[in-house]
Amino acid sequence: MTTPEYDDQNVFAKILRGELPCHKVYEDDNTLAFMDVMPRGDGHVLVVPKAASRNIFDIAPDDLFSLMATVQKVARATVAAFEADGCTIQQFSEEAGGQAVFHTHAHVIPRFTGVSLRPHTGEMGDQDVLASQADQIRKAFG
Amino acid sequence: MTTPEYDDQNVFAKILRGELPCHKVYEDDNTLAFMDVMPRGDGHVLVVPKAASRNIFDIAPDDLFSLMATVQKVARATVAAFEADGCTIQQFSEEAGGQAVFHTHAHVIPRFTGVSLRPHTGEMGDQDVLASQADQIRKAFG
Repeated sequence: MTTPEYDDQNVFAKILRGELPCHKVYEDDNTLAFMDVMPRGDGHVLVVPKAASRNIFDIAPDDLFSLMATVQKVARATVAAFEADGCTIQQFSEEAGGQAVFHTHAHVIPRFTGVSLRPHTGEMGDQDVLASQADQIRKAFG
Repeated sequence: MTTPEYDDQNVFAKILRGELPCHKVYEDDNTLAFMDVMPRGDGHVLVVPKAASRNIFDIAPDDLFSLMATVQKVARATVAAFEADGCTIQQFSEEAGGQAVFHTHAHVIPRFTGVSLRPHTGEMGDQDVLASQADQIRKAFG
């Protein structure tokens, strides 16, 4: 498999450039975290490195480490915000791997005992609910 | 949620101490990678840090970075070994998050166009097949 070149017209690149809105929960020099608009569970957050890369195959190690440092912070914050019982982290690379937007990203999904992940139907979450959840998570960062 | 204390009697701690066997695919100073004996897809590998931690909630950042550096290497090697079309990475924390063995680990699953992940039935993979796949992956590390 050859990893295709990065295309900066993807949705997350547009969010990073401020050309599209997002429900931001955290930002630092190297990463941005925001609500997944098609959540598979309450509090489902996406974390992206600011530097361009397509996925696990071409990301620079330093960008991967920055990504994971933020993933860990977001995991702790989302679980605290929603009093969750656990967390599921996913990273999809290439279409066969489950990737739909070709800028490297990790899914952080707080989990609750007895509650399955919702299927990925492509249905949009309610924007007011997402805004409210983002607010809850931001507060949990303290 | 309070993260319970690490218990060194878990299966991956026993593998790390050499008290249980594994089909090893890669090892360095800080991490070990081996075949998942209940694979959800051909070439399903687990990566563990050697240092003790339970999951994303208590792992030290340096151990998380070592883990991810190996995850990236294993993703590239498994995809090369099986001529896969993509890769799915998962990290489960606490039972509600999907975790069954309480030593931090990441799942690296090479993916093939049109092939879904097998359900997690608890059924053991064929040991000869796993040994052969481990051999293929080790060779792909070059």
